[in-house]
Amino acid sequence: MSRPSVVAGGLPVSADFAPPPGIATRRRWADEDRAARPLRLARLRDRLRTESVDAYFGVRPEHMRWLTGFALADGEEKVAGHSGQFLVGDADVILVTDSRYTLQARREAPEASVEEIGYELPRAWPALLARLGAHRVAVEVAAVPHALWQRLREAAPDVELVPIEGWVEPMRAVKTPGEIERIAAACAVADRALAALLPEIKPGVTERDLAMRLEWLIRTGGAEALAFDVACLAGPEAALPHGSPGERPVLAGAVLLFDFGAQVEGYRSDMTRTLFVGEPSARDLDLYRLVARAQQASIDTITSSVEAAGSDAQPIISGAAADAAARDVIEAAGHGAHFGHGTGHGIGLATHEEPSLARRASTDPLPSPTVFSVEPGVYLEGETGVRIEDLVHVDAARGLVERLTSFPRDVLVLPA
Amino acid sequence: MSRPSVVAGGLPVSADFAPPPGIATRRRWADEDRAARPLRLARLRDRLRTESVDAYFGVRPEHMRWLTGFALADGEEKVAGHSGQFLVGDADVILVTDSRYTLQARREAPEASVEEIGYELPRAWPALLARLGAHRVAVEVAAVPHALWQRLREAAPDVELVPIEGWVEPMRAVKTPGEIERIAAACAVADRALAALLPEIKPGVTERDLAMRLEWLIRTGGAEALAFDVACLAGPEAALPHGSPGERPVLAGAVLLFDFGAQVEGYRSDMTRTLFVGEPSARDLDLYRLVARAQQASIDTITSSVEAAGSDAQPIISGAAADAAARDVIEAAGHGAHFGHGTGHGIGLATHEEPSLARRASTDPLPSPTVFSVEPGVYLEGETGVRIEDLVHVDAARGLVERLTSFPRDVLVLPA
Repeated sequence: MSRPSVVAGGLPVSADFAPPPGIATRRRWADEDRAARPLRLARLRDRLRTESVDAYFGVRPEHMRWLTGFALADGEEKVAGHSGQFLVGDADVILVTDSRYTLQARREAPEASVEEIGYELPRAWPALLARLGAHRVAVEVAAVPHALWQRLREAAPDVELVPIEGWVEPMRAVKTPGEIERIAAACAVADRALAALLPEIKPGVTERDLAMRLEWLIRTGGAEALAFDVACLAGPEAALPHGSPGERPVLAGAVLLFDFGAQVEGYRSDMTRTLFVGEPSARDLDLYRLVARAQQASIDTITSSVEAAGSDAQPIISGAAADAAARDVIEAAGHGAHFGHGTGHGIGLATHEEPSLARRASTDPLPSPTVFSVEPGVYLEGETGVRIEDLVHVDAARGLVERLTSFPRDVLVLPA
Repeated sequence: MSRPSVVAGGLPVSADFAPPPGIATRRRWADEDRAARPLRLARLRDRLRTESVDAYFGVRPEHMRWLTGFALADGEEKVAGHSGQFLVGDADVILVTDSRYTLQARREAPEASVEEIGYELPRAWPALLARLGAHRVAVEVAAVPHALWQRLREAAPDVELVPIEGWVEPMRAVKTPGEIERIAAACAVADRALAALLPEIKPGVTERDLAMRLEWLIRTGGAEALAFDVACLAGPEAALPHGSPGERPVLAGAVLLFDFGAQVEGYRSDMTRTLFVGEPSARDLDLYRLVARAQQASIDTITSSVEAAGSDAQPIISGAAADAAARDVIEAAGHGAHFGHGTGHGIGLATHEEPSLARRASTDPLPSPTVFSVEPGVYLEGETGVRIEDLVHVDAARGLVERLTSFPRDVLVLPA
């Protein structure tokens, strides 16, 4: 086995990565969104007509933001009541609020009719539907609670509620240039933050302190929020793929796993790096190289399919096949049972969205242009864990497959 | 009108408030929880027997933590799939996970049977129910999506799903001493953080910078997390009761509203202070005094009812009546239309829980011992907003009504 080495040319530094976007760029994105919303609504309305429904009732905050512009913070929907739930009819978009959110909704969603209905949507439901002339309403049943479904049904018994799933998700999976720019900007904020953190990583510093510092670097470095809570897991803790940072210290001669992301103008990034502090064990180094090969195998397979599709107009690879390409490498090394999660997930206004790269993912071609993570991992309970995660942008029509995450993937050994 | 003045004795400082809990206190709380979980489960099982159901299917993270000990971070349930969903049978508790969460669940919920079922609960559903011998299952329909309800019904057509709401919520509204201690500790962390921030508040500093600093002070000052995103709203922005901090600067001669909370060992706090930077206008000062009187009126009414109940064993005041006491004061001043939200909400493992203090809240007596917010506000669109929020602990059996929020409520004028 060869000796591990740090990245050629030394440790990465923040200046290696793109600076955060300025105000002009952010304004351009806002303008693009404003121009895109009528087109997005038109495509949803096409679907309504095809399915013979008169209106669409949605509750997912990311759909609402994409279709109307009104934005709730992460998790805010849990305390927002019905605020942010919305109806799309043939001509109107109705955005439901209570008094806490009315001013914000009018400001952010100027094209929608903001209806301050208070805390009891079922009471207002018949009049809202009458206004839209809706007799058959598509309902986002994967997100609408069963109790709300029952109350809406009882509130307007003559209206047919049609359970639907996945009408907006595939539209959102196909990204515009401005959406991809925002995801790339979120990737760069995360890259820069990790590079800035490297000098502070040493044995004895706690997972929690490093996670807090990384969060601070992200949120003062161009992001308006984290995409999700930072994971920083030392040594055996890295075997918990979704563990939380604790008071545990960084260990010399062991792995240190960071899984984190930034949010820039609503769009998310997601990356994982498994670093070494002091000389890694042969076992950990083998696992790292295995996971890196698995990740590369998936990206190579995707690249081949996109190149073939470009010249022959063939459909590109499926999420199931992209998963299999990584999984085969890990299974061949005897670690199939130690890679329990999927290989990747789409990302955008939500951290996890379509497409899925997983064993039971769709066998249809991946959407395009789109962005998803490629993040195989191997986890040995009580011992160690390795995961490497990059975001990948695929644009089949342009024959393009590119990593949006720029932080190096080489074995990176920090001084112990 | 009298001149406004700062708090008697000068500005509050962090040392005015209780220090964060040490490790021994935190261990005592964990021990109390471990001892309490069998009792909590026994009470839920009593309810199952009363209602002739064999099992309870829950998905709310706060219920799961209270009943089993397994804790997801805020919002993590959105990416956790079925992980953290649970079944309580007559003898067993089954905690569902996928491979990402299995190790964590076994560690945090040692008394539960952790079942790694992967990503398809309906597939495992018949066998899980057979293990519990369950033919009638109560389902948390206010949180279970309609699509999941349908799939579970189809997966075991011979099992009756019983839609229920509010079985665990009223149990969780009644707090143990250790739960109240944790809420009080979260209040003190927030009090200390705002006191430490005061010297940094001056015209020109942005809402976003102050919100970030306050968050940092909370999360390095004894809390493991925020209870919710910090709101910091300057001048006219304070009219948005749930607005987000932006790049807007603090304005001299205007209000500055902070709404924020800490989380200590899972338990939350929630407080709002509306400060003045430079001499307030007569209008803002009038509004402040009105809101303070409304808050005091509600707390006084609650106190009277608890004192009366203590001696006469009378039921204590309802959430609807506690709301009316504050609302009457604001309506009498002609601002009823500018106070659109409820007067308060319970708090604990969730930021918003039972009991509710609102116009349409229950007219039954408030639970006891319990903790809730009292937070009237007046909002003038495009002009100004004032809200004052404290957490209040009520223990009718002990004749006790006490504020857990200790930060002064006097008019506080910072130098401009």
